[in-house]
Amino acid sequence: MPIVLRVYNTLSREVEVFEPFEPGLVKMYVCGPTVYDYSHLGHARTYVAFDVIKRYLRLRGYDVIHVQNITDIDDKIIRRANEEGVSWREIADRYTKDYLEGLEKLNIHVHIHPRVSDHIREIIEFIQALIDAGYAYVAPSGSVYFDVDKFDDYGRLSGRLSKELWGQEEGFVKEKKHPYDFALWKAAKPGEPWWESPWGKGRPGWHIECSVMSSKYLGKRFDIHGGGQDLIFPHHENERAQSEARFGIRPWVKYWLHTGMFRLGGEKMSKSLGNIVTLKEAFKKWRPEVIRLLFATVHYRKPVEMTEESLKQAERSFSRLVSTVELLKKLMQEVEPDHSLSEGQLRVLNAISEVRKGFYDAMDDDFNASKAFAHVYELTTIVFRDLSQKPFAAGVLRAWEALREFNEVLGVLDKYFAGGEGSDELVRKLVDLIVEVRQEFRRRKEWEIADRIRSELAALGIRLMDKRDRTEWIMER
Amino acid sequence: MPIVLRVYNTLSREVEVFEPFEPGLVKMYVCGPTVYDYSHLGHARTYVAFDVIKRYLRLRGYDVIHVQNITDIDDKIIRRANEEGVSWREIADRYTKDYLEGLEKLNIHVHIHPRVSDHIREIIEFIQALIDAGYAYVAPSGSVYFDVDKFDDYGRLSGRLSKELWGQEEGFVKEKKHPYDFALWKAAKPGEPWWESPWGKGRPGWHIECSVMSSKYLGKRFDIHGGGQDLIFPHHENERAQSEARFGIRPWVKYWLHTGMFRLGGEKMSKSLGNIVTLKEAFKKWRPEVIRLLFATVHYRKPVEMTEESLKQAERSFSRLVSTVELLKKLMQEVEPDHSLSEGQLRVLNAISEVRKGFYDAMDDDFNASKAFAHVYELTTIVFRDLSQKPFAAGVLRAWEALREFNEVLGVLDKYFAGGEGSDELVRKLVDLIVEVRQEFRRRKEWEIADRIRSELAALGIRLMDKRDRTEWIMER
Repeated sequence: MPIVLRVYNTLSREVEVFEPFEPGLVKMYVCGPTVYDYSHLGHARTYVAFDVIKRYLRLRGYDVIHVQNITDIDDKIIRRANEEGVSWREIADRYTKDYLEGLEKLNIHVHIHPRVSDHIREIIEFIQALIDAGYAYVAPSGSVYFDVDKFDDYGRLSGRLSKELWGQEEGFVKEKKHPYDFALWKAAKPGEPWWESPWGKGRPGWHIECSVMSSKYLGKRFDIHGGGQDLIFPHHENERAQSEARFGIRPWVKYWLHTGMFRLGGEKMSKSLGNIVTLKEAFKKWRPEVIRLLFATVHYRKPVEMTEESLKQAERSFSRLVSTVELLKKLMQEVEPDHSLSEGQLRVLNAISEVRKGFYDAMDDDFNASKAFAHVYELTTIVFRDLSQKPFAAGVLRAWEALREFNEVLGVLDKYFAGGEGSDELVRKLVDLIVEVRQEFRRRKEWEIADRIRSELAALGIRLMDKRDRTEWIMER
Repeated sequence: MPIVLRVYNTLSREVEVFEPFEPGLVKMYVCGPTVYDYSHLGHARTYVAFDVIKRYLRLRGYDVIHVQNITDIDDKIIRRANEEGVSWREIADRYTKDYLEGLEKLNIHVHIHPRVSDHIREIIEFIQALIDAGYAYVAPSGSVYFDVDKFDDYGRLSGRLSKELWGQEEGFVKEKKHPYDFALWKAAKPGEPWWESPWGKGRPGWHIECSVMSSKYLGKRFDIHGGGQDLIFPHHENERAQSEARFGIRPWVKYWLHTGMFRLGGEKMSKSLGNIVTLKEAFKKWRPEVIRLLFATVHYRKPVEMTEESLKQAERSFSRLVSTVELLKKLMQEVEPDHSLSEGQLRVLNAISEVRKGFYDAMDDDFNASKAFAHVYELTTIVFRDLSQKPFAAGVLRAWEALREFNEVLGVLDKYFAGGEGSDELVRKLVDLIVEVRQEFRRRKEWEIADRIRSELAALGIRLMDKRDRTEWIMER
């Protein structure tokens, strides 16, 4: 499609035209969590942001392969395990489960969730290749370090182009050639998990996993590398150094995308949430769709300050979207095909086209979901203002198509769109049948069983209204 | 997306790169039926072909506005009305209803179905503008003709560039300047419907409606004009002359697309169908999905010879697609997220990517649906061969996404994809409740009412199996 998608590339600090290496195919790697604690709202912000990007790319006709790793070997995990007196694997498994449940609730479907501990062999091979090529060296302890000075482009991603800005990595500082060299492999210390390697027992450093697992699943170069802004340095800087050194390929990653910072804001928010910002706590208070919608309707690069008010706003938006789908569904059943349209109706059709164009234009502008959502909202206004009282088939159908399309990106209305006529029809007929059978009990004045059926249906969101000679019902979602 | 879509343009007789007038928006006008008889399989072939084109364009990210007219004023309608002794409107309404029902069954959603009789005012204005500009003349009878010699490019669309090939239109030949001039407005004859006009009582000629209604709903120029091959001359040739003359714009239509001929073939076919080829008869013998699938998987430009065998083949393909969705649905519930993939699993993922690429490449090649379907079929093979016994999440998810995407074009699996978990869950709970209530009647040995519930559920595709102390049920689609 000739409309041009543009994305801001952290590497160039410019908005660039988006063109993946292979036409039609986008390979995307997103840094997932270190599983030492429950996922929190800040994680959700980043994961939803990249899910929205993925979904929009799919809507634009790209095939997207989405890999999001799980860091299950790390200092923090080991520390936590020692605190609790359990194995590191128990900690990792517990919080991996929590993370995956969070993604599921947020309607995020990652293709591959590679876990570091499943890729030790590949990590060792990668490090060996770096040593062989002269980019890494083995220190006396058995740790292996990346020799930053050997890589000619270090610091470009984070904009730290002078050595003074490179800081120094924690660790066995004295054995390193330079303070800014970073560990690829850490020699085993007592009480830590370890694996055999050509350099003795040890475990991978933090950064190497992403270079290894991305190339395993996406090839030596890929299109989008994403993560939170806080990962740019040193994590992504180091990943880039490792991979470009190893593969002798530049650029290794075509577009680096980073989400803005997240924080809780507002007095009310801190009062109501205290320090609890885990997703599982948040889901007790708000529907996953509301949290998803909030994050899916801000620009991924912008900082997000979440307040009670912003969540309430998302709640209102969500319920407006639901009412719009439900209304359109009803109107779709009622309207007759149009054999002629008035000027006013043509204006409504044009307004819907404009809304759709606005949505695409906004998303094409570096995935500006906030601006895009203003157009979604405009569509709901058109539906309520122009179609609810005077529906016509072309308008209703076009609005339906547009909203269904927007939801491919928003991902919060699936269950309202799902079912379609076929399934709704079946539900309707089944409820009719139950109501009819219940009438039999009412005729016999067996109130107890009739009441039980009523309350079981109520539990499914179906409310019965008994009239003198019949029973009506409505579905409340 | 940088992949290039190419279409064969009847006007240039070349395959051209597809670029609509407005980026991202495709305006498409397809010639619909003259409603003097039931819709037949030949109509279905053309309507499904353009629906597939529309759906593929949508999948590629284009917004598509689809207008398909209904010719409800015509010699054949008048003749039929006179034969039956009813009004022309009764005939038109009867077959319009049949046509719209056919589209509905074939899962084709046209935005606007303009009907000629609703656009008489606009037709008169259009004709007057042609007269004013010197392209048309009023004959003594009150009929108005298009003066073909005045239009400098007549015959280009159909490749009839010399006057000898233009033939002559039936009608009041003597009053025309040239035999090949065609009627824009026909003076009323006894027993025919008529409308008042500046030239006396009369009715529109055949061709003018499409010029008028397309410009009303799509603007003075638009992207795709479609129809059966048999409409190229004189219908589309005349439409083009009228519109380019009226608007002084060239090209009026950017791409002219025509479907190949349809015929019934094979001995069996003629035996089983006789001369009955109406859609409503065909639907008695085959599911609409099977007929749709057959037409959705041939190249729109190729001739189609429909045989008993080709329908059986479509039936087998349909049932294979259904089994594939059902299997994937089941596997989606069962598999755990992948933390690591084997070489073999990576090969499966690559195979799915190749399939998807193949599908897009084929459709990008002038909507070669036949070639595209070979890739869909290949996907079902991957699912059964590589995933059914050894499912893994990334493979199942990617296969699911690909099939769901292919169905956006095929349009035959909606009800199998629809529902999703939410709706299926509600249906399951409702059936459980009915079965439970029915148990109450069985305990009381009220067999009659229990049997009635059984047969009502059976009518909804739900089969009960009574065991000694409980009742199991399955859903048969």
